[in-house]
Amino acid sequence: MNLQHYPSALLEEAVNEFAKLPGIGRKTALRLVLYLLRQEKTEVEKFGNVLITLKSEVKYCKVCHNISDTEECLICSDGSRDAQTVCVVENIKDVMSIENTQQYRGLYHVLGGIISPMDGIGPSDLEIESLIQRVKTGSVKEVILALSPTMEGDTTNYYIFRKLALSDVKITTIARGIAIGNELEYADEITLGRSILNRTLFVQ
Amino acid sequence: MNLQHYPSALLEEAVNEFAKLPGIGRKTALRLVLYLLRQEKTEVEKFGNVLITLKSEVKYCKVCHNISDTEECLICSDGSRDAQTVCVVENIKDVMSIENTQQYRGLYHVLGGIISPMDGIGPSDLEIESLIQRVKTGSVKEVILALSPTMEGDTTNYYIFRKLALSDVKITTIARGIAIGNELEYADEITLGRSILNRTLFVQ
Repeated sequence: MNLQHYPSALLEEAVNEFAKLPGIGRKTALRLVLYLLRQEKTEVEKFGNVLITLKSEVKYCKVCHNISDTEECLICSDGSRDAQTVCVVENIKDVMSIENTQQYRGLYHVLGGIISPMDGIGPSDLEIESLIQRVKTGSVKEVILALSPTMEGDTTNYYIFRKLALSDVKITTIARGIAIGNELEYADEITLGRSILNRTLFVQ
Repeated sequence: MNLQHYPSALLEEAVNEFAKLPGIGRKTALRLVLYLLRQEKTEVEKFGNVLITLKSEVKYCKVCHNISDTEECLICSDGSRDAQTVCVVENIKDVMSIENTQQYRGLYHVLGGIISPMDGIGPSDLEIESLIQRVKTGSVKEVILALSPTMEGDTTNYYIFRKLALSDVKITTIARGIAIGNELEYADEITLGRSILNRTLFVQ
């Protein structure tokens, strides 16, 4: 279906806006717009206003650069958390994933991406300098590098490691190994090799 | 990933709105919202405003009930089209599909759905009465039923056919047959049987 004949300019404009979103084509965009047209006026207005408010009012925590409704985010301002440990992640979604495990009680540092020369993203585009400054204050004892185990992730890890090498902060990285529930048979050799080298004591 | 720990109430609200859309789950919704956050403020405001304007300003053509920016849609008010032929379709998307074929020069009548007792949709929920009235004026010579060949579509076709039986309008339906490019081998028996009964003269 080649969607050329929009019966209304308003409709076409709305379809154009939805089709700009990643992973949403013109057919899906039209389906979403027609769905919204069937909803109550107040509902659609709420949707529109939420988007406008979001962009104009959202803040980024001045300490960890996570999205926040306040100057300092709820995690950074939570006195019960371990402020000596900082977990370095690529983006906001990673903070949410780690928070959902309920296994971590330290703070975060959101880089806002990873070093990727192919996409033109260098160290200065990321919140790396602010991480160095944060460590320099002396209150941080451990930096956990929790970036994806890809080439870009490893490059970023190494860059941060070099930058922090002169400070006396402990630098760790999240464990690589066989994912729980995965078949050993289908694990790649590098992961399997590392998981043997970094074996841990068996505990129930 | 169980998305419970939203770092911002504004973010969560925006995710909630996107997740109401059909086919969009909470993970996709979060991805879309984070994408919008990376865009320019003016772009996001435009998106929000387009949605609000769409719902408050969109009209439905008083003749064919298609979406329109004006009282009477561009198709109905186009004097060069054949006003004696009315093609009955389920929704706006079907009008767009048929317009894109560039094979039809008549007018339309958008029912706004099809009779579906399972979904609680009866004849009075659809624009059937307005179709009957339109035919009664006497200017319509042919009504083409172009609903999907499903049980609901056939039921609606039959209902309209019965309602119009007393008027002297010609009632036709779109041809059923083997789709162009399809293998005969995979066609279902009913379609194949009908396509033989309704065979047409061979033309190049």
